[in-house]
Amino acid sequence: MSVMRLGYVHTRESDLDKAIDYYINVLGLEEVAQQDGKHYFKCWDEYDHHSLVVENGGLGLVKMGYKVASSDELSHLEKAIENFGLPVTRVSAGENLGIGQAIRCTLPSEHVLELYAEAEQSGTQVGVLNPDPWPSDRPSGAIGPDRLDHLLVTAADVQTNVDFFTRVLGFRMSERIIPSLDNEELLAAFLFCSNKAHDIAFVKGSNGKLHHFAFWLDSWNDILRAGDILGRNNVQIDFGPARHGITRGTTIYFLGPNGNRNEVFSGGYMTYPDFPSITWTADQVGKAIFYIHREVHERFNKHVT
Amino acid sequence: MSVMRLGYVHTRESDLDKAIDYYINVLGLEEVAQQDGKHYFKCWDEYDHHSLVVENGGLGLVKMGYKVASSDELSHLEKAIENFGLPVTRVSAGENLGIGQAIRCTLPSEHVLELYAEAEQSGTQVGVLNPDPWPSDRPSGAIGPDRLDHLLVTAADVQTNVDFFTRVLGFRMSERIIPSLDNEELLAAFLFCSNKAHDIAFVKGSNGKLHHFAFWLDSWNDILRAGDILGRNNVQIDFGPARHGITRGTTIYFLGPNGNRNEVFSGGYMTYPDFPSITWTADQVGKAIFYIHREVHERFNKHVT
Amino acid sequence: MSVMRLGYVHTRESDLDKAIDYYINVLGLEEVAQQDGKHYFKCWDEYDHHSLVVENGGLGLVKMGYKVASSDELSHLEKAIENFGLPVTRVSAGENLGIGQAIRCTLPSEHVLELYAEAEQSGTQVGVLNPDPWPSDRPSGAIGPDRLDHLLVTAADVQTNVDFFTRVLGFRMSERIIPSLDNEELLAAFLFCSNKAHDIAFVKGSNGKLHHFAFWLDSWNDILRAGDILGRNNVQIDFGPARHGITRGTTIYFLGPNGNRNEVFSGGYMTYPDFPSITWTADQVGKAIFYIHREVHERFNKHVT
Amino acid sequence: MSVMRLGYVHTRESDLDKAIDYYINVLGLEEVAQQDGKHYFKCWDEYDHHSLVVENGGLGLVKMGYKVASSDELSHLEKAIENFGLPVTRVSAGENLGIGQAIRCTLPSEHVLELYAEAEQSGTQVGVLNPDPWPSDRPSGAIGPDRLDHLLVTAADVQTNVDFFTRVLGFRMSERIIPSLDNEELLAAFLFCSNKAHDIAFVKGSNGKLHHFAFWLDSWNDILRAGDILGRNNVQIDFGPARHGITRGTTIYFLGPNGNRNEVFSGGYMTYPDFPSITWTADQVGKAIFYIHREVHERFNKHVT
Repeated sequence: MSVMRLGYVHTRESDLDKAIDYYINVLGLEEVAQQDGKHYFKCWDEYDHHSLVVENGGLGLVKMGYKVASSDELSHLEKAIENFGLPVTRVSAGENLGIGQAIRCTLPSEHVLELYAEAEQSGTQVGVLNPDPWPSDRPSGAIGPDRLDHLLVTAADVQTNVDFFTRVLGFRMSERIIPSLDNEELLAAFLFCSNKAHDIAFVKGSNGKLHHFAFWLDSWNDILRAGDILGRNNVQIDFGPARHGITRGTTIYFLGPNGNRNEVFSGGYMTYPDFPSITWTADQVGKAIFYIHREVHERFNKHVT
Repeated sequence: MSVMRLGYVHTRESDLDKAIDYYINVLGLEEVAQQDGKHYFKCWDEYDHHSLVVENGGLGLVKMGYKVASSDELSHLEKAIENFGLPVTRVSAGENLGIGQAIRCTLPSEHVLELYAEAEQSGTQVGVLNPDPWPSDRPSGAIGPDRLDHLLVTAADVQTNVDFFTRVLGFRMSERIIPSLDNEELLAAFLFCSNKAHDIAFVKGSNGKLHHFAFWLDSWNDILRAGDILGRNNVQIDFGPARHGITRGTTIYFLGPNGNRNEVFSGGYMTYPDFPSITWTADQVGKAIFYIHREVHERFNKHVT
Repeated sequence: MSVMRLGYVHTRESDLDKAIDYYINVLGLEEVAQQDGKHYFKCWDEYDHHSLVVENGGLGLVKMGYKVASSDELSHLEKAIENFGLPVTRVSAGENLGIGQAIRCTLPSEHVLELYAEAEQSGTQVGVLNPDPWPSDRPSGAIGPDRLDHLLVTAADVQTNVDFFTRVLGFRMSERIIPSLDNEELLAAFLFCSNKAHDIAFVKGSNGKLHHFAFWLDSWNDILRAGDILGRNNVQIDFGPARHGITRGTTIYFLGPNGNRNEVFSGGYMTYPDFPSITWTADQVGKAIFYIHREVHERFNKHVT
Repeated sequence: MSVMRLGYVHTRESDLDKAIDYYINVLGLEEVAQQDGKHYFKCWDEYDHHSLVVENGGLGLVKMGYKVASSDELSHLEKAIENFGLPVTRVSAGENLGIGQAIRCTLPSEHVLELYAEAEQSGTQVGVLNPDPWPSDRPSGAIGPDRLDHLLVTAADVQTNVDFFTRVLGFRMSERIIPSLDNEELLAAFLFCSNKAHDIAFVKGSNGKLHHFAFWLDSWNDILRAGDILGRNNVQIDFGPARHGITRGTTIYFLGPNGNRNEVFSGGYMTYPDFPSITWTADQVGKAIFYIHREVHERFNKHVT
């Protein structure tokens, strides 16, 4: 699989100052640059230039970037995307700050996807020479996730997006929700390009919308600590702490100051390309999403940005 | 303080068979006896004969028993209770299976309280000679709490109950909820007779009702495992996993098959008689109850049995 | 039980500056005062003026202070100690900075014990009005224990010390190590005056020596974090992370810069006066001390200060 | 990267019955088959036929098997291995029970490596339809790891093995130990073919020897539980619970009944092919191996089988 990981999420925030304060002082991200109204953030354990871009105006996703293993792979992917029938735009190195030459397309679900093979590697906060396991000077009152993990977007036609990601980009499907064993229409699909349970997920819904993007924490104890920090800062909890049936991960969902949904996520199994996809039927969708609670509240289903 | 701990909770269950199955196969308690329609259960780390009694018919609390340090103390308490103005009934040894001579009174909140100094000590599942830290043969699919921890009941007049527990029984108040710093009417009071953050709590509400009784787990990880087991068994979650502001404990509330509410509880601070009481004002009641979420749903407030 | 808890440990340090740096920057204690060459520290969740005093010169224990529930109790204890045959010295309020009138005696084991009922309550770092569960501004690179927990000292005659603590001070014995079921000589005794598994412990050895004193952490995850901090700061680990058979607690032992041994401790069961003592026989002493490892290294047995 | 994961470890045990008892009742593996004196085991969350083979006679490694993404890849690897200069043997489907056609070679370090693309998928204990996050009927007194994780073997010439794994098999080096920044001879190398911090590791030492193979646990809490189980069963602990500097994982090393070393491992970072290798210099080797303790005992260094 030549696509390696979700490299960055680029979002819109209706009140940029509130969002910046939130990402620095609640999430505990490092602001690494600002330029032309865009603010760039990264987590303490990420090597590349940034993993989050925030700009003013509205809500939701501007675009997402997945990093590819090599420039050669990028060229192959360019052709494969065009063969699938999606127009591809070339993006010059540096057009995305700190990111090399990229290709851009719009998914069947109307989300903008960029793929790139090169980024400035500013390094992690612990370095690569006799490193400590975590940086000692993180602010204790902010969450401080290790890294960006995945995102979930909505799509009118989940199947077509899955076709694109699996046939063109080489992703595999770890789990899916279908109406029943007699009707395998995809209500949701969880796709991976790594050994994680998901690197992107699609849920049936309006095209072009963002459900959430997630940051990785090391343990269920860190989920509690994150919850305490969210509580202290009066951040609107959407749901959790909870266990997912899908991925087996543990989670809290919460809404940023303008309404974009974030998740802190930990755990889940390792997956591999030879593993069968796991199937959830709609009658078990509650357990699929929140295993302990076995029901999903309306805001979680309806609120997208 | 001569009262040591909550020794037993005796409840009514509208469908006794369902309740027995739930306490054995979901909670993972050991059924130690049944007699005259009453079923007796205990946790793996409890020494005394039982900590839970369940009988058929209705819902809610039949009575609660607190164990006192000595028979002398029991005699002193008998007089003190009568001096407070509550009638006291003597209960013969064995009238409560496995429990010695007791005294019984009805609280101002109309709950029945028994105090006793002696119980058959059938011992814990790990014993007292070179013991293992936990029993190796617990069923892995049931929760298996260490011990009963506390209960919370509702009272029309919280203050009078607090007066009784503090002045007569020697409890102290660890935390309280009041309308505001200008109005110190007790909306809720958390009382301890040990070094735990609470051994009993009263919340303003109808007299005679049970809000919940709680079992102790060793860690936040055990809270997650308990949640998984509740999910697997389709037990109705009331709220959690969550963090309490009050006590700092971590928690899941859930409803037994007939509607009595249970809690699994872990963590919280150690308290001492010389510690000042912590005060929560009503504007912060959400944070007091569920620190992360900062709001309390209607069922948690209204559902009592 | 009128004695409430270990209130303070007062130790000697051969290099005071190193000790101060260690307690502030590694342990993460707050230095609350210094006067006449003594440095006073406390943990974030302690109400009283201090819990640790450090002074220059040598190693080991100057004295330990246990807080008593009331001045009346203190008077009763004074007589009881004298009746036991130990001379009692009265200590004026303020002679111990921030501490009220005390009584002082020398234990059969030659350790100096102070008892007191009053201390200045400077409060915890989270306060008593709508408090957060933990302070947000703790340095993330230091351990930051909640509170002082217990100490363990050596005694040539464990039994006499146990007699004193149980008959005079009202402690109970939670656990003991004996040569065999045929020879109940006390090799070690673990005593409590609270609901914790131990508030003081005696192990057979030279009189007047300190084995360790311990700080409380909330979880096994905090034990790992403490270990990381100890590693980062090149603190000499004595043993752990590990599980105790005795108390069931989890632990790391480590040596301060001058050689006094500290412990971070978490977990363990709640105990009560009516619980039977747990017995460990000498053939199981490895399991008793370190349940997982089942053997105790020489330094742990021999190094005292 | 076409090699997916360590599929199986095949070891020799001097007392087969003891080994079988240990893998079933202490490790908690499922024995899935026995044939021709070989016993086959797997973990609860593994899809393929088995992950451990044990046979009678001596100690150490018979061979290891890594699973490849496809039969085409296997053919490519066959040529690449021969080009590297190692003879390749073809192994018929079924010659390894439950495993498809394989290729076999002997590494420069004299360990036998098999690569294969097909295995019978007997499935995990939770299945692929609306699965629970963990099986409810695991024995609570055995460890029950999720899956086999990695192995570490010794090599007289680490560099040549690294060359083979990186240039021929497509692995990457996550971390390395070198004498100093002036002398980059490989004393140890940690290699991955997935997103884990290591799938195989080589340490300088005798050719053909096994240092340990490791099973995955979900959390540091599971490491403690595993430790308790090892203690209860009197398994010889080699080291841990501990934190690795390398990989950041948490660990216990222990010796099976005949002396083969196992590890339970949890945590560690996700890695990617574009990440720089982390370097540890020999003066920090203690911290590299055991971050908290910063020293490595002789048995860990010397004992191989």
